[in-house]
Amino acid sequence: MDLASYLADEKLSQTIRLFLNLAISIAGSIILYKIMPKFKDVFMRADLKGTDLSKKEKVQIPEAYGVICGAFFLIITFIFIPLRFYETLAFNKELSHHQFIEYLAALLSIACMIFLGFADDVLDLKWRDKLLLPTVASLPLLMVYFANINSTTIIVPYPLRPWLGYALNLGFLYYIYMGMLAVFCTNAINIYAGVNGIEAGQSLVIACSVLISNIIEFNGPFRDNHIFSMYLIIPFIACSFPLFIYNKYPSRVFVGDTFCYFAGMTFAVVGILGHFSKFLLLFFIPQIFNFLLSVPQLFKFIPCPRHRMPKYNPVTDLLEPSVVQFYDKDLSKLSKLIFKLFRMLKFIKVTEKIDEKNKKLVCYESSNFTIINFYLTIVGPTREGILTKQLLILQVVCCFIAFMIRYQLSKLFY
Amino acid sequence: MDLASYLADEKLSQTIRLFLNLAISIAGSIILYKIMPKFKDVFMRADLKGTDLSKKEKVQIPEAYGVICGAFFLIITFIFIPLRFYETLAFNKELSHHQFIEYLAALLSIACMIFLGFADDVLDLKWRDKLLLPTVASLPLLMVYFANINSTTIIVPYPLRPWLGYALNLGFLYYIYMGMLAVFCTNAINIYAGVNGIEAGQSLVIACSVLISNIIEFNGPFRDNHIFSMYLIIPFIACSFPLFIYNKYPSRVFVGDTFCYFAGMTFAVVGILGHFSKFLLLFFIPQIFNFLLSVPQLFKFIPCPRHRMPKYNPVTDLLEPSVVQFYDKDLSKLSKLIFKLFRMLKFIKVTEKIDEKNKKLVCYESSNFTIINFYLTIVGPTREGILTKQLLILQVVCCFIAFMIRYQLSKLFY
Repeated sequence: MDLASYLADEKLSQTIRLFLNLAISIAGSIILYKIMPKFKDVFMRADLKGTDLSKKEKVQIPEAYGVICGAFFLIITFIFIPLRFYETLAFNKELSHHQFIEYLAALLSIACMIFLGFADDVLDLKWRDKLLLPTVASLPLLMVYFANINSTTIIVPYPLRPWLGYALNLGFLYYIYMGMLAVFCTNAINIYAGVNGIEAGQSLVIACSVLISNIIEFNGPFRDNHIFSMYLIIPFIACSFPLFIYNKYPSRVFVGDTFCYFAGMTFAVVGILGHFSKFLLLFFIPQIFNFLLSVPQLFKFIPCPRHRMPKYNPVTDLLEPSVVQFYDKDLSKLSKLIFKLFRMLKFIKVTEKIDEKNKKLVCYESSNFTIINFYLTIVGPTREGILTKQLLILQVVCCFIAFMIRYQLSKLFY
Repeated sequence: MDLASYLADEKLSQTIRLFLNLAISIAGSIILYKIMPKFKDVFMRADLKGTDLSKKEKVQIPEAYGVICGAFFLIITFIFIPLRFYETLAFNKELSHHQFIEYLAALLSIACMIFLGFADDVLDLKWRDKLLLPTVASLPLLMVYFANINSTTIIVPYPLRPWLGYALNLGFLYYIYMGMLAVFCTNAINIYAGVNGIEAGQSLVIACSVLISNIIEFNGPFRDNHIFSMYLIIPFIACSFPLFIYNKYPSRVFVGDTFCYFAGMTFAVVGILGHFSKFLLLFFIPQIFNFLLSVPQLFKFIPCPRHRMPKYNPVTDLLEPSVVQFYDKDLSKLSKLIFKLFRMLKFIKVTEKIDEKNKKLVCYESSNFTIINFYLTIVGPTREGILTKQLLILQVVCCFIAFMIRYQLSKLFY
């Protein structure tokens, strides 16, 4: 068999390419693991460092280490271009030009997000920018979706079909949805943070879930989409794993916004161009819950302190829910309603500070509105290492539930 | 005339697109000019600042401002994607898929270089990385060249044809040449620095020269290549011009490595994908001369101090050539030869420090091996503002010579 016909065997060459991708990813992962500690001084000297507040000894460790992961991810995926597209390029197959465009646009969006994340770590950008920048960075992605796919029709679930029909063309709204998906993914991981290893850990669990779903669908009708996703998610796992090793309790490095943005954009990219954005969102159950919990503080209905991570108790060496204090009179009517609702649902733990003299309410002390604080109000003060482990197990359980929903429950609706 | 046939008129829509590109570039340029000062505090707080050593008052000004330019360049070029490729995408013209791939790869390479430049500014990377990173960043570019063009044949000049024939296929060597072009362009601008406004100024002059050559060739046989170049070089000029305003003497901001890398990669990209890399290099005459002058110090034949920028004399308020001192015995044979040659050619000004007692040579004091110091040894101490102006005029003259060579002299050789 000569080279051309050998390469023309699409399935065979797809498998070979996946192994090549795996091989350079593993090689990159090992090199990354080896060289990471060498950059410590460089980061400390550049003042990219932070204090781990949840430890007895307040040592400073390097911050924004995700930038090394991101750079390695780009190197791996760039080296993969000739391996992936060699025969596209050499034999000029028109068909795979589409795939080349998708791959380039995906890398462009991810590269921009790594750059913007790093700029955020260094320059400490405003909230406004954090919403604007992922939108801009996802523009190449949406353009390519428009060019190659432009399918904005969704299948309507059974119960809604009497009203909406079998399929619904969302048109331009679908593009807004996709743009918001990128913003959501990047920020959702960023705000689910505060204990050692949680950012890298949750991203790894989600990435592995994506990879498993790709493998499940490998011989299905959307094979190409899932292979596309694998070409990106395998290098992502390879680059995140060494980071997790250094970031897990007790952290020797912090990942920074860079990593959260990088991870979020990678997920958005594979979700959008791999056509499984709704399935992808199922893996984000804890993040969605955390986001919904955070809404009152993010949108300033309830006062939001600069840090909402759990509070470290140096006496017991345990983490407790961090709190925010505010006066009843400072809350608007809507704020009061939200506060009441969250309190009723036991998402927050509230203590009322009473003036001893006149027995009147002075102020509220509420645990902060995040999933980690919520979890701590349920299980009580916990050691940081154990807390991270439990939260990651929760993420695994949620991803398992996602698979159940996708492959069992969805039969009822579609 | 309906929309489709209207858009199908290629020449008309090309002109419209160029005007759209110009319009968003100008809009971006104005916004950039307005918001630049607002970032000052952000940069100072992030410790991205430096002292202007060539001033009486040693004030600190923000450093790495090129990152804002770079981000704006990406925003402008991203917004331009739908404007440029709307009909490609909507009517699915196979032909312009090639152009879409080229545009995406160009942006990917430039985005990576902005990211790496900023990482260099923040983390202060090693020399080794400065050579490695542009090579990696240019990988997408070379892949696309391979995919879309893959012409590695050069036309041999008349005088060499008896030996080499009319055309010569360089094959793989041509890719090495292109990879090195990216490394050269990024670093050549980076080392031609040291007086206020010279980095942004030289880049602007080169960019305008590229634009002029694109306009000259607009109705020539390679129209598409030159339009491709214009789509990138117009936004580049739009983003660099406001930076130059703030960076020119007396500087209110420094541009940082970020800008030099960004500019260099943009030139390399338009040169390679626009097929005029050899012509492009003609615009780099001062940079090439500066690079050749610097070789002895860059490769450590002659000791190289950390900074080689001209020395400020606070008494006269003039810039003088900066110097490096070394002993004759510390030079190897080859170093001595190079030193002798440069001294003979008067590229450097050497003072021999003689021991008064035994009349023996103690050490050499040589001006540093850069074009700016060389220029100062010729014209004598100069005010910084005037020096920058003269160097930029030199750049303009060199670019004019480049046009002469391209359009007059080359007739003798081709």
